[in-house]
Amino acid sequence: EKRMESGKRSLRIRNVLLRQCLSEFLCSFIVIMFGCAALAQMKTSRGAKGQPMSVNMAFSAGIMVAMYLGRDISGAHLNPALSLSFCVVGSLSWSKLLPYCLSQVLGAYVASALVFLMYYEAIMDFSGGVLAVYGPNETASIFATYPSSFMSHRGSFLDQVVATGMMMLSYLPLADPQNSPASRDLLPLLVGVMFLGVSCSMSSNCGGGVNPARDLGPRLFMLFAGWGTEVFTCYNYWFWVPIVAPMLGALLGSGVYALFIHWHLPGAGQDDLSPENEDSTAVNTQSNTSDYQR
Amino acid sequence: EKRMESGKRSLRIRNVLLRQCLSEFLCSFIVIMFGCAALAQMKTSRGAKGQPMSVNMAFSAGIMVAMYLGRDISGAHLNPALSLSFCVVGSLSWSKLLPYCLSQVLGAYVASALVFLMYYEAIMDFSGGVLAVYGPNETASIFATYPSSFMSHRGSFLDQVVATGMMMLSYLPLADPQNSPASRDLLPLLVGVMFLGVSCSMSSNCGGGVNPARDLGPRLFMLFAGWGTEVFTCYNYWFWVPIVAPMLGALLGSGVYALFIHWHLPGAGQDDLSPENEDSTAVNTQSNTSDYQR
Amino acid sequence: EKRMESGKRSLRIRNVLLRQCLSEFLCSFIVIMFGCAALAQMKTSRGAKGQPMSVNMAFSAGIMVAMYLGRDISGAHLNPALSLSFCVVGSLSWSKLLPYCLSQVLGAYVASALVFLMYYEAIMDFSGGVLAVYGPNETASIFATYPSSFMSHRGSFLDQVVATGMMMLSYLPLADPQNSPASRDLLPLLVGVMFLGVSCSMSSNCGGGVNPARDLGPRLFMLFAGWGTEVFTCYNYWFWVPIVAPMLGALLGSGVYALFIHWHLPGAGQDDLSPENEDSTAVNTQSNTSDYQR
Amino acid sequence: EKRMESGKRSLRIRNVLLRQCLSEFLCSFIVIMFGCAALAQMKTSRGAKGQPMSVNMAFSAGIMVAMYLGRDISGAHLNPALSLSFCVVGSLSWSKLLPYCLSQVLGAYVASALVFLMYYEAIMDFSGGVLAVYGPNETASIFATYPSSFMSHRGSFLDQVVATGMMMLSYLPLADPQNSPASRDLLPLLVGVMFLGVSCSMSSNCGGGVNPARDLGPRLFMLFAGWGTEVFTCYNYWFWVPIVAPMLGALLGSGVYALFIHWHLPGAGQDDLSPENEDSTAVNTQSNTSDYQR
Repeated sequence: EKRMESGKRSLRIRNVLLRQCLSEFLCSFIVIMFGCAALAQMKTSRGAKGQPMSVNMAFSAGIMVAMYLGRDISGAHLNPALSLSFCVVGSLSWSKLLPYCLSQVLGAYVASALVFLMYYEAIMDFSGGVLAVYGPNETASIFATYPSSFMSHRGSFLDQVVATGMMMLSYLPLADPQNSPASRDLLPLLVGVMFLGVSCSMSSNCGGGVNPARDLGPRLFMLFAGWGTEVFTCYNYWFWVPIVAPMLGALLGSGVYALFIHWHLPGAGQDDLSPENEDSTAVNTQSNTSDYQR
Repeated sequence: EKRMESGKRSLRIRNVLLRQCLSEFLCSFIVIMFGCAALAQMKTSRGAKGQPMSVNMAFSAGIMVAMYLGRDISGAHLNPALSLSFCVVGSLSWSKLLPYCLSQVLGAYVASALVFLMYYEAIMDFSGGVLAVYGPNETASIFATYPSSFMSHRGSFLDQVVATGMMMLSYLPLADPQNSPASRDLLPLLVGVMFLGVSCSMSSNCGGGVNPARDLGPRLFMLFAGWGTEVFTCYNYWFWVPIVAPMLGALLGSGVYALFIHWHLPGAGQDDLSPENEDSTAVNTQSNTSDYQR
Repeated sequence: EKRMESGKRSLRIRNVLLRQCLSEFLCSFIVIMFGCAALAQMKTSRGAKGQPMSVNMAFSAGIMVAMYLGRDISGAHLNPALSLSFCVVGSLSWSKLLPYCLSQVLGAYVASALVFLMYYEAIMDFSGGVLAVYGPNETASIFATYPSSFMSHRGSFLDQVVATGMMMLSYLPLADPQNSPASRDLLPLLVGVMFLGVSCSMSSNCGGGVNPARDLGPRLFMLFAGWGTEVFTCYNYWFWVPIVAPMLGALLGSGVYALFIHWHLPGAGQDDLSPENEDSTAVNTQSNTSDYQR
Repeated sequence: EKRMESGKRSLRIRNVLLRQCLSEFLCSFIVIMFGCAALAQMKTSRGAKGQPMSVNMAFSAGIMVAMYLGRDISGAHLNPALSLSFCVVGSLSWSKLLPYCLSQVLGAYVASALVFLMYYEAIMDFSGGVLAVYGPNETASIFATYPSSFMSHRGSFLDQVVATGMMMLSYLPLADPQNSPASRDLLPLLVGVMFLGVSCSMSSNCGGGVNPARDLGPRLFMLFAGWGTEVFTCYNYWFWVPIVAPMLGALLGSGVYALFIHWHLPGAGQDDLSPENEDSTAVNTQSNTSDYQR
């Protein structure tokens, strides 16, 4: 018993950033597992066991679970666009941005690999064994997002900016301590409901990625798993849109909320839009450190 | 850092009413963004990526988010019919009614413009480039509500009176402090669920507007965006029904609740049906003022 | 102002039972308004704007709203079968059973009349002006429940016993203070979710009434509104099944919960299965009385 | 009155394990009643009154209700795979594993018998009176799970390992007191939402059992009720997959959560992943005993 305890202690990770990266990795893994598996279920059953609504619900449930899992460790950003926004408003240090983003992309990568494994026989049966990006038997849309045929790059860029901006504008009041936020207990459920709303209203133009990691991770996986370079070259190198546009969108959404609401709130002298600011993380860190030093 | 802080302070709006109008503007903007974008998603994907249920869910999620955003600033009425009711029961001063309503209409107007921009290519693809009010390729129903073909003016007037009345009758007990209200924390979620119920049961006759701003704002936008005056003249100048009827309906719903329930509650000596009464706003104002004077 | 206040005071109902009946009336009215209007929406739009799922959601939302409205006044039973069960376990006095049930039936009656008025043009358009109980254009299923063609009386009796029993068995643990109940704040939402589950699983055999008032009230309305006596004679006088069977089912469900769980709970010396027992109502009454005497 | 009280006392079960088994029996009964009745509704109405989504919702509602019912008595595991995991992490004593599992299987058995009785006429009408395991009129999928035609044993084993693992990985952070768990009050609702996500994303390959009792109980019932031995021999003796794979999956899911998150949490010196550990049960037991001794 004691040996097991000390074995565990030796496994325990003392580095705060590493633990935070583990948390973002697992959070992102969970969201993509739920979401892309739901897309695989819809696609491979040809709509019999899944519809856009069930996919939206699965993504939302994944986000909810991931937030309960990681919010006290890393803030459960799940999304490079959110991490960037929190850097800009000062609640995440810039030095953590890259590690956070890489963890999120990696989590999405590993999750899509597991979805592929889990749905391997279904995907082979559906596609006749050919991993295609275009056509009626394409399976690329299980993993990454693609634009509707009528969308230009400019149009889908705007689509992703607006959708991510609305998500951010909706997320911030739920969590802004200077306004009338939801309780900590309820927050992840409400973020799930809010994301369900975003998915129901802003996902038909180009798949509603609103998250660079959600799109890039699975796309990279497809590159190595057999779909080939077409996943990046298709639709005239469209892949950069769901990476860049959400970054801009999240910043714009934060800006609108700050400009219209946050700056005019009575107690908002100190600027902090994020529920998980650096200070609280620092406190966390200290208590952790002292815990380890005991 | 200090300069930025003082820059922000100069941006801060000292006028309470102006801040409340900003809040109602943004709340209304959010509801219409979620709702009309969901309608655009359903319409332009010809039902493949959206159904009446997903539209209802998007409206409900938008209402929930908007309530968390604005309830402590302006009460998050979102709806001129609610603002009017609160004026009648004395929890909003009559002088604020017009500014509130204009902000709500303006928020809806701007949101529908953004939905149009976001779905521009999809709408062009769907409609073949003709912005029509009638016919199989009509796109006017993305923005405003229209009656079913069999509805008379009298019938749709009754429909909107009853639907808005039921919404009001359902909203009041959730928030009535003299009865057994839901907690502040849960209220916006429950209002979303309640509205989902209203949408599932009272929206087929004439679109379930139940909100003059939700209807008038986008209709005005369509007038200028290319649909032309037909959006107002169609169905024999039907547009006034979803403006006038909800006003009456909300008052009737409040009356029924007061008559059957509220007046007979033990502690209901002071009449206040609204969770956001003038007094609390006044307190808010004072604390804000003192905050600014510091 | 003072005159208005005293006018209100003269309107205030001093009789506790009458207030409780008003509450049950309005609660039942709300549930049937939401539910039957959703059925009308599904039926008259021929499934285009409503499906069984949207009907289930509307009923659940109505139940949730009604519970917030009436739980502190009358317990918000909404259902004669529940009232009977609470009489049996001693948390409602037998003398109140009949007034409660009549109020519930009357609420359902008035609600179905209003649904008929609201959907009059839609029903006329759908049915071609003939209010039929059988056939492809029947509209009787908007209001009351009917068995599937293959169901015998014995089979549908069992169906309603089991469905109501499951509802009762699921409701009691959510509210049993001796067990691990949900908080008062959350309870109505959870009852809505639970009822959604019951509707999704036990409503295809004969409509999932599980509530004598929900069925009898609208059926009586149809008798007078033009459907004629066939609403009672159809399917070999089937109408008594959804009245009698739920009564038995609720008692059985309560019995199973008591036998398997409640009696074995540590603190369950005093027998009370209902969250709204007579004692607390009595306390309420006293405080009300003293309030009036002041 | 007194005699009734003493009659009840003689019915009260003094044995803690027996009460816990009763609780697991009834919890499992509720989940399968909701879930398999929803499957029967979907199947016998040929999709008219039920879809995969309504089935998923019914299972989730059942899980939610069962957790409120049994969590303070037996922990409401509902699932042998969870009970096994809790034995491994030390929060359930190994001696209770078999009684728990048997109770869960028995509850599922009895529930499927009642579903069969309730839907007897519908099943006879649908199937033409032949209880078949294969073919367009098969009714075996109402009760137990079966693989899609393209699945190998290896593939469906992996599917069930991953699905159960994801469920466990998602359940643990919701309830881990060392992390940021949901409140006791909200937990069952959130577990329902999480399970809805699992069902929407990981149930198309082989039915999403993720629970040995959910599958074995109804399958045993079918063996005796007329489907014959084919329910066990079909698909090359596939029945063992949804029994064995979830056991492994739950352990793996627990392991991933421990390895990535739990062991690195500051206060996680004592190892306990389960919200219902043996100690608290022991305390419960003591208070019960003293209660009985009074």
